[in-house]
Amino acid sequence: MKTYIAVLTIILCTCVQAHWQVVQQWPAPTSPHYEPTWESLDQRPIPQWYQEAKFGIFLHWGLFSVPAVKAWLWYLWKGPNPEMDIVQYMQDNYPPDWTYADFGPLFKAEFFDPYLWADIFNASGARYVVLTSKHHEGFCMWPSKYSWNWNSMDVGPNRDLVGDLASAIRAKTNLKFGLYHSLFEFFNPLYLADKKNSFTTQDFVRSKTMPELYELVNRYKPEVVWSDGDWEADSKYWNSTNFLSWLYNDSPVKDTVVTNDRWGSDTNCKHGGFFTCNDKYNPGTVQKHKFEDATIMDKYGWSYRDQVKASDINTMDELTQLLAEVVSCGGNLLLNVGPTKEGRIAAIFEERLRQMGQWLGVNGEAIYATTPWIRANDTVTPGVWYTSKKSDSGDTDVYAIVLDWPQNDTLTLGVPGIAAGTKVSMLGYSRPVSFTRNPQGQMVVNMPVIPFYQMPCDYAWALKLQGLANA
Amino acid sequence: MKTYIAVLTIILCTCVQAHWQVVQQWPAPTSPHYEPTWESLDQRPIPQWYQEAKFGIFLHWGLFSVPAVKAWLWYLWKGPNPEMDIVQYMQDNYPPDWTYADFGPLFKAEFFDPYLWADIFNASGARYVVLTSKHHEGFCMWPSKYSWNWNSMDVGPNRDLVGDLASAIRAKTNLKFGLYHSLFEFFNPLYLADKKNSFTTQDFVRSKTMPELYELVNRYKPEVVWSDGDWEADSKYWNSTNFLSWLYNDSPVKDTVVTNDRWGSDTNCKHGGFFTCNDKYNPGTVQKHKFEDATIMDKYGWSYRDQVKASDINTMDELTQLLAEVVSCGGNLLLNVGPTKEGRIAAIFEERLRQMGQWLGVNGEAIYATTPWIRANDTVTPGVWYTSKKSDSGDTDVYAIVLDWPQNDTLTLGVPGIAAGTKVSMLGYSRPVSFTRNPQGQMVVNMPVIPFYQMPCDYAWALKLQGLANA
Amino acid sequence: MKTYIAVLTIILCTCVQAHWQVVQQWPAPTSPHYEPTWESLDQRPIPQWYQEAKFGIFLHWGLFSVPAVKAWLWYLWKGPNPEMDIVQYMQDNYPPDWTYADFGPLFKAEFFDPYLWADIFNASGARYVVLTSKHHEGFCMWPSKYSWNWNSMDVGPNRDLVGDLASAIRAKTNLKFGLYHSLFEFFNPLYLADKKNSFTTQDFVRSKTMPELYELVNRYKPEVVWSDGDWEADSKYWNSTNFLSWLYNDSPVKDTVVTNDRWGSDTNCKHGGFFTCNDKYNPGTVQKHKFEDATIMDKYGWSYRDQVKASDINTMDELTQLLAEVVSCGGNLLLNVGPTKEGRIAAIFEERLRQMGQWLGVNGEAIYATTPWIRANDTVTPGVWYTSKKSDSGDTDVYAIVLDWPQNDTLTLGVPGIAAGTKVSMLGYSRPVSFTRNPQGQMVVNMPVIPFYQMPCDYAWALKLQGLANA
Amino acid sequence: MKTYIAVLTIILCTCVQAHWQVVQQWPAPTSPHYEPTWESLDQRPIPQWYQEAKFGIFLHWGLFSVPAVKAWLWYLWKGPNPEMDIVQYMQDNYPPDWTYADFGPLFKAEFFDPYLWADIFNASGARYVVLTSKHHEGFCMWPSKYSWNWNSMDVGPNRDLVGDLASAIRAKTNLKFGLYHSLFEFFNPLYLADKKNSFTTQDFVRSKTMPELYELVNRYKPEVVWSDGDWEADSKYWNSTNFLSWLYNDSPVKDTVVTNDRWGSDTNCKHGGFFTCNDKYNPGTVQKHKFEDATIMDKYGWSYRDQVKASDINTMDELTQLLAEVVSCGGNLLLNVGPTKEGRIAAIFEERLRQMGQWLGVNGEAIYATTPWIRANDTVTPGVWYTSKKSDSGDTDVYAIVLDWPQNDTLTLGVPGIAAGTKVSMLGYSRPVSFTRNPQGQMVVNMPVIPFYQMPCDYAWALKLQGLANA
Repeated sequence: MKTYIAVLTIILCTCVQAHWQVVQQWPAPTSPHYEPTWESLDQRPIPQWYQEAKFGIFLHWGLFSVPAVKAWLWYLWKGPNPEMDIVQYMQDNYPPDWTYADFGPLFKAEFFDPYLWADIFNASGARYVVLTSKHHEGFCMWPSKYSWNWNSMDVGPNRDLVGDLASAIRAKTNLKFGLYHSLFEFFNPLYLADKKNSFTTQDFVRSKTMPELYELVNRYKPEVVWSDGDWEADSKYWNSTNFLSWLYNDSPVKDTVVTNDRWGSDTNCKHGGFFTCNDKYNPGTVQKHKFEDATIMDKYGWSYRDQVKASDINTMDELTQLLAEVVSCGGNLLLNVGPTKEGRIAAIFEERLRQMGQWLGVNGEAIYATTPWIRANDTVTPGVWYTSKKSDSGDTDVYAIVLDWPQNDTLTLGVPGIAAGTKVSMLGYSRPVSFTRNPQGQMVVNMPVIPFYQMPCDYAWALKLQGLANA
Repeated sequence: MKTYIAVLTIILCTCVQAHWQVVQQWPAPTSPHYEPTWESLDQRPIPQWYQEAKFGIFLHWGLFSVPAVKAWLWYLWKGPNPEMDIVQYMQDNYPPDWTYADFGPLFKAEFFDPYLWADIFNASGARYVVLTSKHHEGFCMWPSKYSWNWNSMDVGPNRDLVGDLASAIRAKTNLKFGLYHSLFEFFNPLYLADKKNSFTTQDFVRSKTMPELYELVNRYKPEVVWSDGDWEADSKYWNSTNFLSWLYNDSPVKDTVVTNDRWGSDTNCKHGGFFTCNDKYNPGTVQKHKFEDATIMDKYGWSYRDQVKASDINTMDELTQLLAEVVSCGGNLLLNVGPTKEGRIAAIFEERLRQMGQWLGVNGEAIYATTPWIRANDTVTPGVWYTSKKSDSGDTDVYAIVLDWPQNDTLTLGVPGIAAGTKVSMLGYSRPVSFTRNPQGQMVVNMPVIPFYQMPCDYAWALKLQGLANA
Repeated sequence: MKTYIAVLTIILCTCVQAHWQVVQQWPAPTSPHYEPTWESLDQRPIPQWYQEAKFGIFLHWGLFSVPAVKAWLWYLWKGPNPEMDIVQYMQDNYPPDWTYADFGPLFKAEFFDPYLWADIFNASGARYVVLTSKHHEGFCMWPSKYSWNWNSMDVGPNRDLVGDLASAIRAKTNLKFGLYHSLFEFFNPLYLADKKNSFTTQDFVRSKTMPELYELVNRYKPEVVWSDGDWEADSKYWNSTNFLSWLYNDSPVKDTVVTNDRWGSDTNCKHGGFFTCNDKYNPGTVQKHKFEDATIMDKYGWSYRDQVKASDINTMDELTQLLAEVVSCGGNLLLNVGPTKEGRIAAIFEERLRQMGQWLGVNGEAIYATTPWIRANDTVTPGVWYTSKKSDSGDTDVYAIVLDWPQNDTLTLGVPGIAAGTKVSMLGYSRPVSFTRNPQGQMVVNMPVIPFYQMPCDYAWALKLQGLANA
Repeated sequence: MKTYIAVLTIILCTCVQAHWQVVQQWPAPTSPHYEPTWESLDQRPIPQWYQEAKFGIFLHWGLFSVPAVKAWLWYLWKGPNPEMDIVQYMQDNYPPDWTYADFGPLFKAEFFDPYLWADIFNASGARYVVLTSKHHEGFCMWPSKYSWNWNSMDVGPNRDLVGDLASAIRAKTNLKFGLYHSLFEFFNPLYLADKKNSFTTQDFVRSKTMPELYELVNRYKPEVVWSDGDWEADSKYWNSTNFLSWLYNDSPVKDTVVTNDRWGSDTNCKHGGFFTCNDKYNPGTVQKHKFEDATIMDKYGWSYRDQVKASDINTMDELTQLLAEVVSCGGNLLLNVGPTKEGRIAAIFEERLRQMGQWLGVNGEAIYATTPWIRANDTVTPGVWYTSKKSDSGDTDVYAIVLDWPQNDTLTLGVPGIAAGTKVSMLGYSRPVSFTRNPQGQMVVNMPVIPFYQMPCDYAWALKLQGLANA
């Protein structure tokens, strides 16, 4: 009997030990398995880190950074509907036989310091960064096996730009590292042939775009896979569901990766991870599905423009407004800047990013890890946006982000319900903020009169409303 | 007798004719005439426009804008004491036989829009602009007859950069247009030969630098001739006094031109027009002689640097402080920015310049056309700088530029003497400002409590003190 | 019964119709059909045009023509066993980060005139020309769908070099147009991956090299497919037999195309079309299998070398000797010249080619359409090479190509058997040539004494031996 | 009296001192002294080495070797009368703003091996070589002090091309080294200004072209100063006589230097050293004044042309004919080849030069150190050119250079007078050559019947006529 128990014990122990290793190495047996169908894939919850991150940085960098006019320059120069100022620019500055690929050796990234980038992004308060690993031009910013001599190792910088940035971000910050990837390529002849065949053939998908995407994920383990360039064909052509089921089930980032909705002409704003719907998507109301507003700091370009003017750059007022609006509606803001061909973040962009970080240093509590409240913005006073968050005590705190300081220092709010214990304060300001109830029962906040040199921040201010009746 | 009269007539006619030619060639008899001696030249008053202008923009643009590392790159690379990081940079990025002149075709200025520059400079509140027509590298930014194939028309931009900017500035603004010119050239073999001869020969001066300077003045009529690169030889070698006497007596800008003091190793801070003494000259006390503080907006470079970081750029606090200090001491501020090889003013510089313009829009009264007061700055409170100006009524108004708003809103001033009719106001703020006299007899200004959103300006504020006892 | 007949008729008609379509699409039933096995493929006879052509021109042109040092420069620079002088050359002339692909925009072919090339090749007496459509570097000289941005349309010349030459050759000459194609590519990552997998994977073959080869044949209809770069893997890896069975059965050039033997490590000198065995293959004895001696006019390079010296170029003596030797052994001579990056045939090559044409204008009868005789060369006198040809009368004429004119003007030949009607003449010389029989029964030809200024040609002379006993 | 002696002594001392300085500065009194007048300068005899040299090599190398179209490309592109094909070429291959100076960095001379050049020139039989130190473009091939950043050290090759070639020629051969120098420069603004002033000003001469010429002579000690570009102004403008008197009296090459006649619009074919009259000057009759035929091996260009065709190159028949004609008339042949931008002598040129050397190896006796005979060419048979030379015995030997071998092997000569001891031989052929006197008393030479493989040379043959009646 003792022997029996001993043996049982040994078996048990071995079993437990083995299981433990399995547990450590593999997903819990309860891990869901996703089928390569939208029905199944859409079941996957958006990972928590992304829900809480709210603010990311988008980087459009590529061969288009050489002429530094537009990310779509090639298409607007040689595509079906040329833009005359682009055509003229090329005529004025290059010989007649110049090709787009001839820009290659001029892309040098000689001053690219990924640790400096990491420092800037970290200081901005962003929680993730997304780099164009390959834009519609098809030029790969890593030494892709499937894009020989059309990548940043074989031409120009002679460097794995994706890899070097990934390493620096991970070594120096807690930011998540993500990758943008364009499914289509403007002028890839394999793609054009598939297109000519009404996408009944998939040569491009099989030999180029999908192998690259797998390679990217396996090699750089991006926690955002930001797909684009999908719109001309449906997700069946792109084999998107197969990729995503692999990504969610078996890839090295299966537990943490986030994707978007640009996986085919049938998926935008419908399937996949967070919704991007269209560029600069800022819906203005609370959204049921997690979304991201991918937008630009330079109003006229995704990629760096040599011609950028100060007035083209969004002001801090505009940027904090955007962030408040987007987060209040349940989205994340993915704010784009375009690095230069030399590998630098232009000082004007760096300054804005660092100012964002300063603002978030004061007001981050009202942004990070919040959820939308019952309404995105106030019903009485325009320019007041709400977020909410469970406090440690279990109550829900509400944050009203005030974009325009009221000229008479009184702010009427239509949505918050005043309760006995309702308390108001302002982030970055230590004293309590008083309020009254007006005849209509609305909360009238007496904005504190603070000497300008003691203001906690510029641009926008966050009121914290605790103990609301309707929190 | 007839013969006698005929001869007399001939003599007379010849005489008149000769005189007539002189009259046509030389200034009106009432103009002062300057001899080519410092004693004489130093007599010339600084033209009024420059006295009143106070704020100018300096532009360091040239072939050095191509590598975009430093204006002195050539010297630090190939000169007697190379800087290792420059040498390394060149080794890392260029073939072994690369020469400095090989940068030429890479300087394209393809996005140079002088009208846009004019607009920016005008918006900055500056009253004049000074462009490097030729820096120590010797590359001329105009099609110099004396620098064939080493100028911006023959190499690279294929454009008269000096001429195009001059035209735009004059067509679109009331700014004065000035030109920087380096007397010496790092590696000009004619200069090096003269130097080897201990400057007993003047081949370089006669065939290169002086002909160019005359050409520049005759062709572009600059109202500032900002000389530099003089320090290795004295003004006798440079023939400076001859040039200046021509400039003051006979040149097309003889009545309006302003010059500086860099005309030889014997002249700096001693002779010529305004004094620059050394770069970034900010003396801190009222100066007897008109001076100019030529300083940089990018703390680490006079020319555009691809590697410029946001933290390298002077803040608006720093820039307004500089302006107040310099003007209070009787100087002008010549604030430098470096355009890019593509011909652009980087957005960060443009933004600062436009912000300067906004500040001057409010506070210009305390800056332009002022004169130093009895003291440059206050004796009690640091960071308060004085200027003064005759009012229309003939009284002298004093301006106290306050760099740091007092934390308790009371500002004690040690210099102003309170009189019966003394009044205090703040530029950009319509209501009177009250003050008291403290036991020590000092003026204690009650700084107005203004909601931050109604502040007339940021960074620094100008109090206008009228009817002072000691004005 | 009627129904039965009707049904039968319908079946028959359908059957005929279907068959008719097949007949239209497929080769005539009498055409042999080749299986994708070497046993079957080796049955195919070498097309007659190639048997008779004897002399072709080989062109090594590609991106390697830019540095103009060696066709293998990339491999010798970056491969496993770098050649120090190549490494040094690159260090001396390019920046440290320079990549091979960076040469692309420097390849301009601005003076490429395919009609001029056609004229030169035609004048040379060559009957076919073979261009490197893609060398081991992988750079395609046509706009390959499978080599995007790594071909002469997308980078550099911006031109379909293969297509333009093909058109000109066909429009202006009767020469056959052939294409060289390298199966492997030095640094193609797909190839390297397959290689790492010991060629158990075929990603490179399926997505790159085979699609390209089909594309080349379908698009340019080359009558020579000159394969190379096969040696690291066997023909199974390369799918060579499938390609060849398609080429012989179904391709647009199925009836006329000629191939060589470089289709895998198991095929060289064994399978395929004509044998090349190794470069510069000149066996010296009559070969059973048709062969080709691919050799170089510049002794030190296949591609154009900027450093080529006069003494590096084969003399006309050497070239005519080569042609005589190779043709006598049953082979063709494929004589290589390397065009320049500007698109020119260097004058020294052009001159040799035109001189070849002059020599062949006199002696072509002894070369074109001949077959080897009973022996390649004479047994008594060195430097005498035989060819033979059926005359119109049905007899076999023998040609003795004499490389060295005998110093005493008598030439003893060991092989020809003298018969009653034996006649000797010299090509280009109208009078009969006498001969005697020596004691050993050998033919002793009295070489005609011709004034030097009436010699029919230089370098080598062809005796025509008619009515031989052993013809 | 004492005063008188003292004064005399002082005068004497001053006189001696002055004279002493003169003695130190000026050539020894026995040297002839030339005044800066044509009358005096024209007295100077042509140095013997040049009289005997007969054959030199001319090298047109410069920035024009980069586009490799024409030495005059700049002028034909941008000058007053543009050539449309040049304009088109520039439009087709360069951006609109491309400048001529932008070619600079593309001139690399990376394969320039002056020792190899020396070897080729030596093998050619030439006795001197003349390099374009500066052509009309003004680009100096040496680090000129007067052409900063417009010379081969400061731009492009980063090398003293003149100096490196001079050293190699002198180290490895006995050839004399000469320099071509263009007085004018197409677009030098100083020159254009002087020209606009109808050459009444001499700024260009004083600050550029003359200083350079002195620098060249002092630095490289050329034994030929081959002046050009003189034709728009007279020698007074150019200061030519001053230069030449210095060159002949005081320069480091005063005893050996040779010059030509291109020193002003008034000098060509009239004054200076040897006459060149016009390019390709081949007068056809014996000239009283020493002349030189500067001509081109490539019929269509002085500088290297990427487009050169084999048929553009003079054949050896043409070149030997030229040499015979020119030497017979008393001239030297200066045969031009254009090196490439890479620094190479194209193989076709090298081959011709080496063949010239082979021909001169046999026939040099009839060329070097000869003098014209009583007639340049024969009166009866065309294509026979005479030279003569004093033999060691003091008799005059005559050489008849026969360009076309007579078809019947008999050559009738009209000029030589037969005497008793008259003997005829052929250079390179050991046996005597017989001759008869025909009824008209003319010499009829029986050209030796030599087997073609024993001919001493190709192209032309030299008969040596000794003991002539009229030698």
